[in-house]
Amino acid sequence: MALVVQKFGGTSVADADRIKNVARRVVERHAEGNQVVVVVSAMGHTTDELLDLASEVATTPHPRELDMLLTAGERISMALCAMAIEERGVPAMSLTGSQAGILTTAQHGQAEIVDIRGDRVRKGLEEGKVVIVAGFQGVDPTSRDVTTLGRGGSDATAVALAAVLGADECEIFTDVDGVYTADPRVVPNARKLPEVSFEEMLELSGAGAGVLMARSVEFGRRYRIPIHVRSSFHDGPGTWVKEDTMEEAIIRGIAHDTDETKVTVHGVPDKPGVAAGLFEPLADAGVNVDMIVQNVSREGVTDISFTVPKASADAARDISARVAEDVGAGGVDIDPDIAKVSLVGAGMKSESGIAAKMFRILSDHGINIEMISTSPIRISCVVRGTDTLEAVRTLHDGFGLGSTGGDDD
Amino acid sequence: MALVVQKFGGTSVADADRIKNVARRVVERHAEGNQVVVVVSAMGHTTDELLDLASEVATTPHPRELDMLLTAGERISMALCAMAIEERGVPAMSLTGSQAGILTTAQHGQAEIVDIRGDRVRKGLEEGKVVIVAGFQGVDPTSRDVTTLGRGGSDATAVALAAVLGADECEIFTDVDGVYTADPRVVPNARKLPEVSFEEMLELSGAGAGVLMARSVEFGRRYRIPIHVRSSFHDGPGTWVKEDTMEEAIIRGIAHDTDETKVTVHGVPDKPGVAAGLFEPLADAGVNVDMIVQNVSREGVTDISFTVPKASADAARDISARVAEDVGAGGVDIDPDIAKVSLVGAGMKSESGIAAKMFRILSDHGINIEMISTSPIRISCVVRGTDTLEAVRTLHDGFGLGSTGGDDD
Repeated sequence: MALVVQKFGGTSVADADRIKNVARRVVERHAEGNQVVVVVSAMGHTTDELLDLASEVATTPHPRELDMLLTAGERISMALCAMAIEERGVPAMSLTGSQAGILTTAQHGQAEIVDIRGDRVRKGLEEGKVVIVAGFQGVDPTSRDVTTLGRGGSDATAVALAAVLGADECEIFTDVDGVYTADPRVVPNARKLPEVSFEEMLELSGAGAGVLMARSVEFGRRYRIPIHVRSSFHDGPGTWVKEDTMEEAIIRGIAHDTDETKVTVHGVPDKPGVAAGLFEPLADAGVNVDMIVQNVSREGVTDISFTVPKASADAARDISARVAEDVGAGGVDIDPDIAKVSLVGAGMKSESGIAAKMFRILSDHGINIEMISTSPIRISCVVRGTDTLEAVRTLHDGFGLGSTGGDDD
Repeated sequence: MALVVQKFGGTSVADADRIKNVARRVVERHAEGNQVVVVVSAMGHTTDELLDLASEVATTPHPRELDMLLTAGERISMALCAMAIEERGVPAMSLTGSQAGILTTAQHGQAEIVDIRGDRVRKGLEEGKVVIVAGFQGVDPTSRDVTTLGRGGSDATAVALAAVLGADECEIFTDVDGVYTADPRVVPNARKLPEVSFEEMLELSGAGAGVLMARSVEFGRRYRIPIHVRSSFHDGPGTWVKEDTMEEAIIRGIAHDTDETKVTVHGVPDKPGVAAGLFEPLADAGVNVDMIVQNVSREGVTDISFTVPKASADAARDISARVAEDVGAGGVDIDPDIAKVSLVGAGMKSESGIAAKMFRILSDHGINIEMISTSPIRISCVVRGTDTLEAVRTLHDGFGLGSTGGDDD
């Protein structure tokens, strides 16, 4: 008997019909002789509706109360799922994050999972029940206040629960079919990947592939829980995210991210401590810096460029301007019209010339590279925002990633 | 410094504007130097919407899960109330029934409050916070499952909390102005009562006055917590429900109830055990029998009539028919077109002739009395449903209960 954790996102439980469909899939899995734990998000637009209500009663809703409010969302979807499963004759029980023993840090709105007790989950499973657990939420054991995990939180709940329960696999049901060689909306012949390694998935997530957040991939990697990312709308297989395979894999795919802004500090005196003096206050302000590039200095000064999420652009500009003045730098430029295009694949560890090929393909199409950053299994280039689609498509073609006409589903 | 419990019902928190209005009233009370505990119901039609969703996913929603679902309603309203109060600069904290330590029986959907721990409520008050508690819900300490209290549950939460915390008063904010001498929709010159005793309120509630359920009045009576029933839409005083006063009070008011059905078992052999044989199976089936009348027997047989809520009429008919056959009774009649009209007032304990006057007034208006039942402070008559309004109005007039033109607000 295997133990399976199945996670269904907001679109998968958006209305009564879809919840009944979820129940069907859960009951099928249970009928195969598996123990099943289900993790659900809030129904469709519930979270947005609750946020609207909050903003109507308060300009800055109290974080503790905002979490109390938002956790009503999963409470509704999990109870409905349990009812729909019971309706099919399979005993079921829903548990809040707190009841499932999901202990988190105290940071409301972006708490992190510290531990999962899971006693009531195990007890429910032993009694032959399907156990439905609210995603996205937990409890701070010190204050006993309810917390939420922030973006990607329900996936993290599912994979962390799978890890703690020693599950055999974790299925993430979503509104896409799996992980593709590139965004299928941009590259029509993008190919669904049957599998990617945890490391590759981490790089793809970090490079803008929204299908699975890095935090849940990290749980999977650490506890070796295979994650199956698949569609909630049909029964076909999706993409397995798992440990390295022996499969020959040069390049997995192309990810792109248009949600960043480039900040450049010009004419920075090239002396020790300047970079720290810039990035420490940014970190203190909670600005999430992604790529950092510093050129070799000429005549004792250098330029430092970095990218931040567009939402943090104002904060990054203000802090950088202050630091620039302090250290006698030339000035600060902000450029929001950029995109990051990344090539990801474990194969590039052993294969040489991948970077050179990437740069050549881009230049052959007249696309200028403004920043470059690499990891052992990723190369990212910042290009003009208007070049994004062409860059993704030509790289996808150039590395032969597309499907060759046959349907591999 | 006084401790006040304020309870706001579903219409009082129906939307963001009304929640802001609730916050204003709470903050006013707090600014007067009081400690304030707020009990809230779910917003307006939330409960109905959740019930609709439940019926879409399951024909008979699992009771445990239905309670899990419905408790999302108060979670939303309490968090919004806390935010709106914080927005006005007063620290606030919301607590679920479980967090507030409201321990109940295990009966999902109609649990009863067994005990209230209230530790986190007290702690919040000591920290100078307004504490908002979810009405209508609690937790079964054995299973640790969330429960709901059923009809009138939020009022019961408020009064029980007031009792346990030793509050000085409990304010019940509702969509009516208070308790009237009769239903103002039926009797235009009905007068708002400045006060009624707990006993009178219990009789009025039992006789169909919907403003306050008997279970919360019973808590108030037992723990001597004065209850102020008042409008959430204006600041004027409502009705105080409290211990007996010295005020001369012959008759408080008229209540009526058109939600009952009369069941008559004809030709019942007049021997010991027959009544028990009828009412035991009714009780076992959860049928709430109200009035019971048995006439003196003639020729060894008698008729037993009783009233039950219309919702239980089918069950009552089936059970009565079975019992009638078992004991060799003549048959069973069901009559849904009845109304119960009741006169309530502590004064009738000492004053004689009240019942006679009531019967005379009704007969003078050609209204036939079909059943009579009395308590020390109440007389109830069952009349034809079509006679309801005239019965209430003529009794209201006949006992001089109406306002005399002056506005007593």
